[in-house]
This record gives sequence, C-alpha cells and structure tokens, in this order.
Amino acid sequence: MENNTADLTALLRAKAQQAGQIVESFAPEAEGFQKTVIEAMRYSLLSGGKRIRPVLMSETFSFLLKDGCGENAQEAVQGCAEMLKPFMAAIEMIHTYSLIHDDLPALDNDDYRRGRLTSHKVFGEDMAILAGDALLNYAFETAARAFDLAKDEEELRRASRAMKILAEKPGIYGMIGGQTADVEMTGRALDKEMLEFIFENKTGALIEASMMIGAVLAGASEEELAGVHDAASCIGMAFQIADDILDVTGDEKNLGKPVHSDERNEKTTWVSLYGLDKAREDAEAYSLKAVRILKEMRPEKEGSFLEDLVIYLAGRDR
Amino acid sequence: MENNTADLTALLRAKAQQAGQIVESFAPEAEGFQKTVIEAMRYSLLSGGKRIRPVLMSETFSFLLKDGCGENAQEAVQGCAEMLKPFMAAIEMIHTYSLIHDDLPALDNDDYRRGRLTSHKVFGEDMAILAGDALLNYAFETAARAFDLAKDEEELRRASRAMKILAEKPGIYGMIGGQTADVEMTGRALDKEMLEFIFENKTGALIEASMMIGAVLAGASEEELAGVHDAASCIGMAFQIADDILDVTGDEKNLGKPVHSDERNEKTTWVSLYGLDKAREDAEAYSLKAVRILKEMRPEKEGSFLEDLVIYLAGRDR
Repeated sequence: MENNTADLTALLRAKAQQAGQIVESFAPEAEGFQKTVIEAMRYSLLSGGKRIRPVLMSETFSFLLKDGCGENAQEAVQGCAEMLKPFMAAIEMIHTYSLIHDDLPALDNDDYRRGRLTSHKVFGEDMAILAGDALLNYAFETAARAFDLAKDEEELRRASRAMKILAEKPGIYGMIGGQTADVEMTGRALDKEMLEFIFENKTGALIEASMMIGAVLAGASEEELAGVHDAASCIGMAFQIADDILDVTGDEKNLGKPVHSDERNEKTTWVSLYGLDKAREDAEAYSLKAVRILKEMRPEKEGSFLEDLVIYLAGRDR
Repeated sequence: MENNTADLTALLRAKAQQAGQIVESFAPEAEGFQKTVIEAMRYSLLSGGKRIRPVLMSETFSFLLKDGCGENAQEAVQGCAEMLKPFMAAIEMIHTYSLIHDDLPALDNDDYRRGRLTSHKVFGEDMAILAGDALLNYAFETAARAFDLAKDEEELRRASRAMKILAEKPGIYGMIGGQTADVEMTGRALDKEMLEFIFENKTGALIEASMMIGAVLAGASEEELAGVHDAASCIGMAFQIADDILDVTGDEKNLGKPVHSDERNEKTTWVSLYGLDKAREDAEAYSLKAVRILKEMRPEKEGSFLEDLVIYLAGRDR
C-alpha cells in the first residue's frame, strides 16, 4: 500500500511536470513596453503549483476515449488532443489569476503563496491587479487558439463548447460567485448550505470546468458530460474539505503557506462545523462517490490513473 | 452645420440608447448568494456611458454589408445580426471592467466616474476587484452565446474569429499592455513613441476590437479587415487626443468627472507634448484619415452615419 502511494506520488509528479511544460509553452515572453505585467504573470503562473486542474482535464480526456478505434478515429483523437493543450494552459491561468487577486490586501491579504512572496508583495498592488486581469484575459486568448486547430465543423463545435464551459464555470455562477459569498461571509458563522455553496463554486467550479472540457474534447455524449459534472462536483467537495483539514493538520513548509489561517481569519470550515474525524470521513465519501460515477461510465477502465488520483486528492498531505 | 451637429447628436443618442438596451438585456440579475457582486457589475455597466464601442461595432457591421443581396443572403445577415448582440454587450462589459479596476486606490484612485461614485467607493475595494473580474469573465460568457446562434460552419467560423479578436485586443498585446505602460510611466516624462504606444493600446485596442468584430460578423474579407483595423486605429488615436483636450478645456459637469486630472497627476498627454492647437489638428487629421480609409472600402456608402460618427468623436465635448 505504501509502495502504491509512492508510485502514485511519482506518477502524479511526472504528470504535473508534463502539464507544467504545456502551461509554460503558452506563457507569453516578458518583453516590450508590457514587460513588467508579463513578468508578474510568469512569476505566479510558473511557480510550480500542483497543476491539478490541467492534469484532471487531460486524464478525463484520456479516460473517456473509447478503446480500439480505427485509423481515422485515431487521427481525430490526435486533433482533439492538440486542442486540449491550450485549454490545459488556460484553466491554470484562470486558477492563477484567482490566487493573485485573492491574496490582495483588500481581500485575503496574504504575503506568501507556494512558499514565495505573493504577487503584490513583489510587483506592487497595481501590477498584481493588472497581472490577475491579464492572466484571466490571456486564458481566453490562449484557449481561442484551439479554433485555429479545428479541422472540421465537429472539432469547431467541440472547441466552442469547451470555450463556453471555460467562460461559465469561473464566473459569477461559478468561482466568482463562490468568492463573493466567501468574502461577504468571512468572520460570520456559516450554515451548511452556505458553506456548500462556497465549496461548490469557489473550489468546485474550476474542477468541473477542467473535467468537463476534457470530456467535451473527447467527444462525450450529453449523458456522459452530466456524469463527469457530477463526479467533478464530488471531487471539488473532497478537495476543499481536504484543504480545510490541511489548514489544521498540515505542515507549513510542505504546504508553502501558513497553516491555521482559517482559525485566525475566523472562517467557518468543514472542520470547524463537523470536527476532524467527520471531515476525513466526508472527504473520503465524496471521493468514493466520484470514483463510483466514473467506474459506471467506463467499467473497462478499472484501476485507471484518474481513479487513483481522485482518491489521492481527498487524502493528500499538501 | 449647427443643425447637422444637433441631428447627429440626437441620432447618436438614439443609437447609444439602443446599444444600452442590448447591453442591459445581457446583464445578469442580482440574486442568489452572489447578489452583491452582480449589483456592483450592474451599477457600473448600466450607468449610462456613451456606448461608443458597441455603436461602432454595429455601425461597422452595417457599413460593410453589401447592398442588394438576395433572400438567402438576407437570412444570413439576420443570423449574423443576432450574433452581433452578445458581442456588443461583451465589449461594453470589458470596457466597464477596465474602468472599475483603473479607478481603484492602487491605480488611479478616482472617486467619481460618469458623475457617480466609483465602484470601490460604493461597494468597497474587495467587491470592486471582484466586480471587475466578474465583468471581464462575463464578457466571454456572454460572447460565447453567439456559438449557440451559429447555424452552420461559416457562422461558427465567424463567431470564433470574433471571439479571438475579443480575447486578443483587451489583453497584454492590447489594452492591458497600454495600461501597464501607463501605470509605470505616470509621473515620468514620456516621449512620442511611448505616448503613441499607450494611446494605441490603452484606448485604441478596444475600438479596433469593436470595429473588427463588426467586420468579421459582416463577412469581411481579410483585406477589408485590415482596412477596418487601420481605420479603427486612427479613430482610437483621435478619440484619445480628444480626451486629453477635454481634460484641459472640458466642462466638469458635462464630463461627469474632474477636469485637469492629467496635470494634477503629472501625466504626459498629447496636449502637454504638442500644445492645444496641434492636438486639435492631429485629432482632426486622424479622424479624416479613418474616414478616407472607410470611404475607399465602400464608396457607395458616402455620407454614412459611421463617417459622421468618426468626425464627431474627434471633436466631441464629452
């Protein structure tokens, strides 16, 4: 079991590195009169995050592909795999912009992130605001490159559907909606409904986007897409509960950010509402539900890396 | 001549109102846990701006349509005219987000905009940052609705080309690039090259986006699109020079924001570099060049509203 975990960690690290290289290949070069803002974008984007969202995207893509397709189908898969790359980079850009803005003095006022000074501490508040804006905007600029790769109407439809998801999930009916509630509710006691809304949107929406875009580009049916949405929603819950647990039990050096910040900021968390034991149980239950949904969709892919990854995320130590 | 100006002002007001209604029809409703951020989005988006960008978009669309097309072509025009609407709303959302973030204490620190308190003065800095992010994001969410309206591959290609322009022009190689240079250069003396870079990007890029999207949806050729780009670039220059002139000669009440702010902020402007007379000459020269380019493209549309509008923008009093 310990061996398996070590193997999985190594495999995850390799996949994260691959995803990181794809993200980097789409990062703009710091030059011209706009050099400073691009430096700030690169500083946060290429700071070695876990790359969980792009990895989930590409793994969902691979997971949903049907085995044993003919030569033509292989070519189509190749085309869609190419379209996947700009979307992998785009989702990481959106995730990164949200961290830069979240860390600003007017919001969470954090000085450290991933073990390094936050953007506004290095580049000043004005440049950090612009760098966040720039990353959000550049995410769509990057994703739009998929249109140039689309060879026929079907691929164009998949790319535009993926673009639609990329635009919807991080917005007011997704991530920003969750952030808004989170900002307004800091320092107030939350009930379960409110906390779930924040988890589902602030954290869950980007995970849903990642997996749904992978599914759309793999040519998933509407029914399959709905299944992927439900699985991703459970993964988002498990992931955020694990985050709350880590804020209590985690190691500051390993996490690259201060622990016990929720307590200091008087934030209601899954742990503060239900206690540590129940939080651990819930994280596991959500991830098992996600795995069950995925298994039902592709029983022949039993024991896939995606399933292992889902289980791992719920019990991770960083 | 005075009568003409009065007619044009009335016509422009009517067009702005129509565009405003289209923008409003795409504005999200303030409800749910994300109510506050949507209220902040609506406060700035529906504050009665001049709607110049969506008007330029729809006028460029109409200007480029060929006369005398058959019944099928009419239907295609109808379809593309429907696709135009989400893009009109989207460009105004992007313009509005840039104003909200520009006004923040860490950037221009302005208290008033369009005669009303700025977003952060009403909703707080945290909500103003989120509302700006939300508007930028919602612009792409709104524009992506055009994909649902696209009936065939050709319309899908036009919509995705328009989406690409919408993503590129406001970004680091467009508006945000200009803002970055503007922020870094405030308080320093600028040379002509630098000032032109800021004008072309901070102001020009969104005007280029507006007109180019109108052109793409109207089915413009690559050559025509290049012409529209050049005309729009001149209009952007004329527009920003007019802005600099208004900061010196304008009426505070009419403008809805304080005058002489450039002088107070020690900003290099077209007026500070070249003086008022030369600035007026240049604004006129740029707008005449834009009109000449447009006339060459569609000589049969002599005396169009678009041409009048271009001339008007260079000499406007608000």
